[in-house]
Amino acid sequence: MKKHYLQEPEWSWNLPGEQPPTYVHHWVQQLRNTNNTPDMILYGAPISRSSISVSGASLYPTEFRRLWKNFATYNLDEDVDLIPYNVADAGDVSMHTTDILLSHQRIQESTTYLVENYPNTTTCMIGGDHSTTACAVRGIKEAYPEETIGILQLDTHLDVRDPKELGPANGTPIRQLIDGDIVKGEHVINIGLHGYFNAKPLIDYAKEHKIQMVTIKQARKKGLIKTIQKALNDLSSKVDRIYVTVDMDVLDISLAPGVPASTPGGMTTIELFDSLLEIGRHPVVNHIDFVCLDPSKDSAVAETVKTGVYAWLQFVTGRILQD
Amino acid sequence: MKKHYLQEPEWSWNLPGEQPPTYVHHWVQQLRNTNNTPDMILYGAPISRSSISVSGASLYPTEFRRLWKNFATYNLDEDVDLIPYNVADAGDVSMHTTDILLSHQRIQESTTYLVENYPNTTTCMIGGDHSTTACAVRGIKEAYPEETIGILQLDTHLDVRDPKELGPANGTPIRQLIDGDIVKGEHVINIGLHGYFNAKPLIDYAKEHKIQMVTIKQARKKGLIKTIQKALNDLSSKVDRIYVTVDMDVLDISLAPGVPASTPGGMTTIELFDSLLEIGRHPVVNHIDFVCLDPSKDSAVAETVKTGVYAWLQFVTGRILQD
Amino acid sequence: MKKHYLQEPEWSWNLPGEQPPTYVHHWVQQLRNTNNTPDMILYGAPISRSSISVSGASLYPTEFRRLWKNFATYNLDEDVDLIPYNVADAGDVSMHTTDILLSHQRIQESTTYLVENYPNTTTCMIGGDHSTTACAVRGIKEAYPEETIGILQLDTHLDVRDPKELGPANGTPIRQLIDGDIVKGEHVINIGLHGYFNAKPLIDYAKEHKIQMVTIKQARKKGLIKTIQKALNDLSSKVDRIYVTVDMDVLDISLAPGVPASTPGGMTTIELFDSLLEIGRHPVVNHIDFVCLDPSKDSAVAETVKTGVYAWLQFVTGRILQD
Amino acid sequence: MKKHYLQEPEWSWNLPGEQPPTYVHHWVQQLRNTNNTPDMILYGAPISRSSISVSGASLYPTEFRRLWKNFATYNLDEDVDLIPYNVADAGDVSMHTTDILLSHQRIQESTTYLVENYPNTTTCMIGGDHSTTACAVRGIKEAYPEETIGILQLDTHLDVRDPKELGPANGTPIRQLIDGDIVKGEHVINIGLHGYFNAKPLIDYAKEHKIQMVTIKQARKKGLIKTIQKALNDLSSKVDRIYVTVDMDVLDISLAPGVPASTPGGMTTIELFDSLLEIGRHPVVNHIDFVCLDPSKDSAVAETVKTGVYAWLQFVTGRILQD
Amino acid sequence: MKKHYLQEPEWSWNLPGEQPPTYVHHWVQQLRNTNNTPDMILYGAPISRSSISVSGASLYPTEFRRLWKNFATYNLDEDVDLIPYNVADAGDVSMHTTDILLSHQRIQESTTYLVENYPNTTTCMIGGDHSTTACAVRGIKEAYPEETIGILQLDTHLDVRDPKELGPANGTPIRQLIDGDIVKGEHVINIGLHGYFNAKPLIDYAKEHKIQMVTIKQARKKGLIKTIQKALNDLSSKVDRIYVTVDMDVLDISLAPGVPASTPGGMTTIELFDSLLEIGRHPVVNHIDFVCLDPSKDSAVAETVKTGVYAWLQFVTGRILQD
Amino acid sequence: MKKHYLQEPEWSWNLPGEQPPTYVHHWVQQLRNTNNTPDMILYGAPISRSSISVSGASLYPTEFRRLWKNFATYNLDEDVDLIPYNVADAGDVSMHTTDILLSHQRIQESTTYLVENYPNTTTCMIGGDHSTTACAVRGIKEAYPEETIGILQLDTHLDVRDPKELGPANGTPIRQLIDGDIVKGEHVINIGLHGYFNAKPLIDYAKEHKIQMVTIKQARKKGLIKTIQKALNDLSSKVDRIYVTVDMDVLDISLAPGVPASTPGGMTTIELFDSLLEIGRHPVVNHIDFVCLDPSKDSAVAETVKTGVYAWLQFVTGRILQD
Repeated sequence: MKKHYLQEPEWSWNLPGEQPPTYVHHWVQQLRNTNNTPDMILYGAPISRSSISVSGASLYPTEFRRLWKNFATYNLDEDVDLIPYNVADAGDVSMHTTDILLSHQRIQESTTYLVENYPNTTTCMIGGDHSTTACAVRGIKEAYPEETIGILQLDTHLDVRDPKELGPANGTPIRQLIDGDIVKGEHVINIGLHGYFNAKPLIDYAKEHKIQMVTIKQARKKGLIKTIQKALNDLSSKVDRIYVTVDMDVLDISLAPGVPASTPGGMTTIELFDSLLEIGRHPVVNHIDFVCLDPSKDSAVAETVKTGVYAWLQFVTGRILQD
Repeated sequence: MKKHYLQEPEWSWNLPGEQPPTYVHHWVQQLRNTNNTPDMILYGAPISRSSISVSGASLYPTEFRRLWKNFATYNLDEDVDLIPYNVADAGDVSMHTTDILLSHQRIQESTTYLVENYPNTTTCMIGGDHSTTACAVRGIKEAYPEETIGILQLDTHLDVRDPKELGPANGTPIRQLIDGDIVKGEHVINIGLHGYFNAKPLIDYAKEHKIQMVTIKQARKKGLIKTIQKALNDLSSKVDRIYVTVDMDVLDISLAPGVPASTPGGMTTIELFDSLLEIGRHPVVNHIDFVCLDPSKDSAVAETVKTGVYAWLQFVTGRILQD
Repeated sequence: MKKHYLQEPEWSWNLPGEQPPTYVHHWVQQLRNTNNTPDMILYGAPISRSSISVSGASLYPTEFRRLWKNFATYNLDEDVDLIPYNVADAGDVSMHTTDILLSHQRIQESTTYLVENYPNTTTCMIGGDHSTTACAVRGIKEAYPEETIGILQLDTHLDVRDPKELGPANGTPIRQLIDGDIVKGEHVINIGLHGYFNAKPLIDYAKEHKIQMVTIKQARKKGLIKTIQKALNDLSSKVDRIYVTVDMDVLDISLAPGVPASTPGGMTTIELFDSLLEIGRHPVVNHIDFVCLDPSKDSAVAETVKTGVYAWLQFVTGRILQD
Repeated sequence: MKKHYLQEPEWSWNLPGEQPPTYVHHWVQQLRNTNNTPDMILYGAPISRSSISVSGASLYPTEFRRLWKNFATYNLDEDVDLIPYNVADAGDVSMHTTDILLSHQRIQESTTYLVENYPNTTTCMIGGDHSTTACAVRGIKEAYPEETIGILQLDTHLDVRDPKELGPANGTPIRQLIDGDIVKGEHVINIGLHGYFNAKPLIDYAKEHKIQMVTIKQARKKGLIKTIQKALNDLSSKVDRIYVTVDMDVLDISLAPGVPASTPGGMTTIELFDSLLEIGRHPVVNHIDFVCLDPSKDSAVAETVKTGVYAWLQFVTGRILQD
Repeated sequence: MKKHYLQEPEWSWNLPGEQPPTYVHHWVQQLRNTNNTPDMILYGAPISRSSISVSGASLYPTEFRRLWKNFATYNLDEDVDLIPYNVADAGDVSMHTTDILLSHQRIQESTTYLVENYPNTTTCMIGGDHSTTACAVRGIKEAYPEETIGILQLDTHLDVRDPKELGPANGTPIRQLIDGDIVKGEHVINIGLHGYFNAKPLIDYAKEHKIQMVTIKQARKKGLIKTIQKALNDLSSKVDRIYVTVDMDVLDISLAPGVPASTPGGMTTIELFDSLLEIGRHPVVNHIDFVCLDPSKDSAVAETVKTGVYAWLQFVTGRILQD
Repeated sequence: MKKHYLQEPEWSWNLPGEQPPTYVHHWVQQLRNTNNTPDMILYGAPISRSSISVSGASLYPTEFRRLWKNFATYNLDEDVDLIPYNVADAGDVSMHTTDILLSHQRIQESTTYLVENYPNTTTCMIGGDHSTTACAVRGIKEAYPEETIGILQLDTHLDVRDPKELGPANGTPIRQLIDGDIVKGEHVINIGLHGYFNAKPLIDYAKEHKIQMVTIKQARKKGLIKTIQKALNDLSSKVDRIYVTVDMDVLDISLAPGVPASTPGGMTTIELFDSLLEIGRHPVVNHIDFVCLDPSKDSAVAETVKTGVYAWLQFVTGRILQD
């Protein structure tokens, strides 16, 4: 069994006593204090020095946890209580200060450790930049080498830049996985593309490898939820498990300034929240990550971090509604 | 007749001379200079030390008036001139520096004074935090003890936290009124709820007291304007007068950062503006307030304060179209 | 032939070598280095001291060019490569430090110079404040005095304040052109009006001169694209060439804080992008400008400048799809 | 013995293991985990709704602790290791949401509890607004009614506004104590006054009650350190114990924007740091507080909070050098 | 006698009743309400479209007055009450929207009007950009053509750029006056120069015209106050009246970000305050202005505007101490 | 002879024609266009992914050059024209996206290339984070293996964290050089240390290796310039060449927010400017760098970047005065 590099999460809350918890920070448990098999394991991958542009996404796991106390454990839209769903926090993968390859290796091994030890648990990785997705998927593949993995990507970018040129940077994870025979191009669906943010050679690569590109415009025309459903159904007919990766830069710049390369013309938060509810409902989705959220770019009201927590809770709500 | 604590408003504009005014700061008159009965009386309730979290909502009445000069007295969407509608500014209720109960009492008494002396005039209170709503409604009840009052609340929160625990804080006004037998729970309709911002015990209280909870999601499905119309019709069939309270935190964080607890997933400004136009049209709406707008949280372009003025003008337009 | 005052643009990029360019800064050429007749000529009019309120719109041409490197030359929504379309940058019109009339004259003469010398080329002026539009249209009229010019204006404001009172300020260009017999009021269509941002005398002027006023609300009801199409078709049936002027303050304050007088209730970026795609497609549109974008009011993520570049690229895409 | 209302501090750090701690967050211990009598007890008084102007000083105790990890436990200027000095954190006094008098009472009682139980320990209260100083001093007086207390105040303001008018607001603590016969006016020395920030009636009160007013200008002329020494020597010759209160608004606005009423012309951080080193050295100083630091007014680099932590460590260094 | 273009100031305060005023906004009177000859007349010159770079200095007169309520009418450093000194506010000179020459002419004529009608009153002009200084000095010269005027300038820049090239821009006022034979170069002393902010041709011009250039470094070496005294004594031995112009960009960027061209290495606020106290004391100083303060560049705490008000009050204190 | 990885600088200015340049951007030449041996060569090392905390110091070389146009080529304090001194810009070392070791190697080789080819030219490296200093010094050592190198470091930190633990991070350069036998500890002098920003084990290392630690407090006591002189004289008596490294975090947080770990209690800009003038004067100083300036942390007025350009020009002035 794989070694892991998970460190205790950077929080420790006063327990609310005998009453059931009503806020997120009292509801999530530390993994080491959890007796039963959790329904979901959270773990942080706080690295962003692998980002092409300057990024503080390494700060996100801590800020993500810090805002939990602003969120109640009840989804009023769906009239659903989150308390029965067990979420355990495994803490952050310990990163090396400068050795990017070593840090990436640790994310991969920690992921293998978690998916081997908790085979029936949904994993949720909190990045970090998008390079971490390649590590996590490789880690899953190592645990389940016989299974095929499909990827549903919500992203403004294809992330198929050439690792031979850039190394394992945040612009390359999908190409790393395709060129490394971990995932097939035809098992990757990207929803959220738009505008002028992918150079032609990348689009050529995507077409050549049959990555399914769905622009926001196309998704809106068909209905975003239907598009998500169709994507998940397509994937689940072809693969054994689905990994969902949410690059927060899929959101419009006015809603999510806290990403390294924010753009106009992106997805709305409502669309993201609805998508994640739907994704959470799907039984073949086993793994999810949220990446490229740079809290240092937020304004004082922390809009992107709040959106990140909300998005994650929508996925949790979907998990609960799934049953 | 009740004493009042209203002070002159903090503005004094050069009169535009013989030509009719074309901007809001020349159109609104000071109450003490008004000869005829005004159609609407504005008054400020500049208190926010009763807010659970840190709030500068006490600064709003002054900032609200300061931005009037950026707004023309003509609604181009409806092709309607506002000039014929008389708005008088009664100034702000004088607040004690630290005695919250005394300040609240003064808001209540000043409201009683206004509604007794101007029985046919629409009142519009500019908060302050949401605790002021309980004061205003009690003040109206004191003037008209035989009448039943209904509340239409646009809010992300239920505001039914327990005043026994928190005192008369901004999280408690609806519960103060229900527990105090001023308003019945079934006469309260909240539109704008969403997400994870109300803990389960509050939802339990709301259900127990039959508060009608309408999430934004539900309202959008049915049509927000239809939902507003239905709410006002329902209320007007049961109560004698309707008090509308607009907690500006009902708006999405990207549109209204200037509130103490801004959240993603909220109402859009367009939706709020359309709602207020509709609300203004309804004859049984006699009272309105706008609360929890903290100008100090705005960015340099004052987006939330501008939205607050615009929202109020939409209500005024509705009043005019009503006839 | 007219003199011109165009200075080299403030950029000089390393050429990408033998491979075709993949980003905008490698694709746009300097006009003086262009051998063939370009499809579009860009030129800057960096003046904003003619703005009624304080404005840094004079900074926009430089910031516009500086962000080119963040945009790829491929439109993923339309699956269209921009490379075959030739865009040449003529640089900025040289402005006098304090002599506004002289600066305006130079914009006019430089425009005449360009449209006379490149009669089949689309011109795109990057403002500067909205006063520059009057100069550009006069410049075109000087080159083609026999032709009638129609204006499609996307704007929150009518811009028909009285130049007799204000001089050639940014609130007056449309009135300058009507009163100066350059353009007829009935050949001006403004789409994007809303709210309380035009005083009654201006609306009276617009009605008197038969300016077609279309509020965003009306446009949304009919369909914005249909409204644009109808406007362009109406105009093209009456005029010889269409000048499109995009005042960036047509956008909502939450999406475009970087304008001197941002307002709530405005157009969305998606709506603007769709409109410009449609406008670009229309063959009778020969000239366009983008004005009143003040980069100094943007937050650190440069949302309005990015939106400005995106909007321009949408127009370019439309040009390409037109054929 | 008095009841107390102290809650666990909002932090829980991973212990550094067997090696000695090298950063502040590993060095400070929770009071309940401390076996020996600590040299200093920290406690928070997170209230600022008693502030005349809007204040987020209630947020300071949490932010103060959160920045500890940026500070090493070694003072390089003095070549002194802080580790041997035992600092225990008693957590925050539990505040009522709206009942200011009750909250103040709890600060007073908790202070009495601490000074009675730890008679030889230096106490350090982290505010909160300046109203908390009156509570703390009354708490000490209650524990040691026979002793006279002197106050050394570093402040831009006299804080002798009339509690009869304002209640126990942050502008009144010194007057509360003088009018309440807890402290004599002649036992109060204020260093740091300057400019135009105290109205004449307050200066008259101060003169009448023989408060010693030392402007920064005077202190600089004589030498700030000599002025501090003289003040402490004067006080210690007259009183039994000295309470030092540091209102962070004593600092210049360019150095400490994070206070509710920042002013130009204030003390420099170097002057404050030198002063606190000197104050820490003085054996008759038993109690200190740091108040009116509003972290929400800081820019993104948290300059005032960092200055607050640094200032406190200077006092600690002084304590160590004292022996 | 000259026409004037002074408009009522944009404020109107509630009178404090029978008690003497304790804050600045109650102390300053409107000129038209003043019975006796005032000791000082304030007037605003709200123009900044004559600024070379983008400037919001036109906003300063209003912001200057708006902050008065934060300043008491007592100088604690000097133990001096300001109340006996009569300050009257003449309001702002009415500016044309785009006609810079006309606006400049009005400043000049309004200054002539004031100095002719109030020959024994100190005038204090609140800019606006530095171009206004040339207008004011010309206005004084027009009233007293036989008198020689000397200028003491506190500035980072020489402001001797060529008006033939730039027109009457904010970089040219001193050269306008010298080339126009209003003031002799040898009667101009600039204190506050430093660094790399004056191009060589400007320094050559200054040397040629015998402008006395004193760098901050030189002033600090000699003693800034001594330098100021010597400058005033030198000037007063040669000229009939002294005009002092304070370009707020003389201050260091860390203390005064709110100027169009802030620089490191500038004067400190303490130095400026001390200088103005000294300048105020000098009997031959009859006129002063404060220019180039752009409130829109300040951070949320309004540091530069507060510094501007403080600086002005220091000059007032000097006037009082003079007698 | 070594390979180099220098790319053209990201600027290209219009030449000012026949007149001598008066601003920095016209004075500095591109190295490839320089005929004579330049007096100084600038080169950028735009890497900050080797920084321990999140850093945008990689953005500095571009921002440094972009602000040149705000600086004149004349030092008014010293009355010195910079034009005769030849500065050539070699551009930036080309960085790999993720391979830190490779990027470091390129900085080293490019430095070797420059110092071998231009043996009599002063080199000035613009970082990047502080890890680049180790590369540059190793590059010099490679070119001149027989020479001993001394280091004068202006820094808040010792930068002797253990590369065995952190890799070649920005906290380790001095230790890399000492442990790697490139530089002896006794040949390192650090001026600017203060406060609580170096953990005890680092101080122990520094003492053990005889690094000379001079706190700001000590330097101010002795006189900072004397301290600098003494340091340079001491070093020049022991070593063959002196490398000066300026970590911009030596400055106080209020003056230089644009560094990754800004602290209160640091050096003032005036002190830094005076120091660099003195350092520039010293003939044995052959190499300098400016590191750890993160432009993305600056406020809108770019205070730290402006300070960085000013500091570099002070060093240039010193070079000129040296002769």
